[in-house]
Amino acid sequence: MMNKNAPIGVFDSGVGGLTVVKEIMSQIPDERIVYFGDTARVPYGNKSKETITKFSRQILHFLQTQEVKAIVVACNTASAYALDEIEKETDIPMIGVVKPGAKVASETTKNGRIGVIGTEGTVNSKIYSKYIKELNPEVSVVGKACPLFVPLAEEGLWQDPVTDEIAKRYLTELIDIDIDTLVLGCTHYPLIRDTVAKIMGNKVSLVNPAYETARELKELLAEKDLLNDTPANLGDNKYRFFVSDASEKFKVFANSIIKYGILSAKTINIEEY
Amino acid sequence: MMNKNAPIGVFDSGVGGLTVVKEIMSQIPDERIVYFGDTARVPYGNKSKETITKFSRQILHFLQTQEVKAIVVACNTASAYALDEIEKETDIPMIGVVKPGAKVASETTKNGRIGVIGTEGTVNSKIYSKYIKELNPEVSVVGKACPLFVPLAEEGLWQDPVTDEIAKRYLTELIDIDIDTLVLGCTHYPLIRDTVAKIMGNKVSLVNPAYETARELKELLAEKDLLNDTPANLGDNKYRFFVSDASEKFKVFANSIIKYGILSAKTINIEEY
Repeated sequence: MMNKNAPIGVFDSGVGGLTVVKEIMSQIPDERIVYFGDTARVPYGNKSKETITKFSRQILHFLQTQEVKAIVVACNTASAYALDEIEKETDIPMIGVVKPGAKVASETTKNGRIGVIGTEGTVNSKIYSKYIKELNPEVSVVGKACPLFVPLAEEGLWQDPVTDEIAKRYLTELIDIDIDTLVLGCTHYPLIRDTVAKIMGNKVSLVNPAYETARELKELLAEKDLLNDTPANLGDNKYRFFVSDASEKFKVFANSIIKYGILSAKTINIEEY
Repeated sequence: MMNKNAPIGVFDSGVGGLTVVKEIMSQIPDERIVYFGDTARVPYGNKSKETITKFSRQILHFLQTQEVKAIVVACNTASAYALDEIEKETDIPMIGVVKPGAKVASETTKNGRIGVIGTEGTVNSKIYSKYIKELNPEVSVVGKACPLFVPLAEEGLWQDPVTDEIAKRYLTELIDIDIDTLVLGCTHYPLIRDTVAKIMGNKVSLVNPAYETARELKELLAEKDLLNDTPANLGDNKYRFFVSDASEKFKVFANSIIKYGILSAKTINIEEY
């Protein structure tokens, strides 16, 4: 029996998953969160399924030590490559960001043409296509890897001529095939949402899996009777942040994403888990 | 007593160190090489000293199992953060890329103003400044971190308007202070040398530590009587490549840097060392 007042575990390769944390904080504000960002081994996007699964399993083991009641894989690449395998290894309910995003995309499209942008790993896995077609076999899904979006977002070039130019190169082929729905299939991409929106034009709906994931998490907790029922006095321990590398950048970046003061992130040796 | 016919160990966070391998192949063609690229944990440039030292120590342990006769730290960040510490832990002679680059820079400058471009780690460590000033205290050294150069180089945008634009932003402050010598303080940067040269103009000399490192390695081996004395029949085993992540990209990228067919790179679990 899980403890209703236990925290929700959320993990990502680094800082991108904080866009999901932000949505969870907003949509279920009475929950504790334990976040782990694998800053020593970031990024995950261009690494193999085997490596990502190994890393995700170590993080699962760490989150188990934190006695979390649910786990959110707040990284599209880990959701694509590792979730199916590691969720079998635990009783803790787990959700990724891909299924919630796929569901909304399949409900949003009118012309049946959906684009997915993400890391090489996420796009090569074709996982969005798989889930979207399970829900609606008539739809066509085209993926496009955008490997420079993460470093550009991490450098803070969220609105910048360089990001515009790179986005044009990546997105032109999706515009050419007349998609009407585009999934932001990497947790960094909400940061450059305005740039993507400008280039895609206002006839294309952008799907942000972070938002949908927080909504599904809330439903999952309600369904399993796991919503926190004593929200008062969560105090300083409400949100806790762990990283595998003591990067000053994590704090700076984290505070720019979630307007909640992240005063400290504790460094752990993730390879030991 | 080291074996003269043993291989030279070379390591880097990923593929950048292959620019050093290329120079070693060219300058001392009769030597065996064992290369390790930490593709599962790349990049190193924005991670902490502690993490980079831990990773470098694991790689040292792996290279020891390969019975190498010398080790080249073909990564500026690892040379800056880890070399001083890990070289104390072994009898195998080790050299990094920073000291050779610093030496040539101090010999090259005429006006006493040197620029160093590199990752955040390398630039924040101020290690080039330290070594250059040891050789010539009169010189002033200004570092500039260029975090987007590695992803741009890895995406193959070696000559591209976007790389030009980013390079202009990074390099303007070095042009403004009238440096006459610029150290390419990251093993990826020789790939975008033409872009950097174009923006700096022909009055600025570019120093490529990869070239200098291979030269110093040759001197070191000669001095210690470790040059291979039976170069015939090195065969298929002459150059061996190991990675921590089985990325197809490594092979593609590696083959674009060194015009030697890298047919295979063996994946090892570096965390076990």
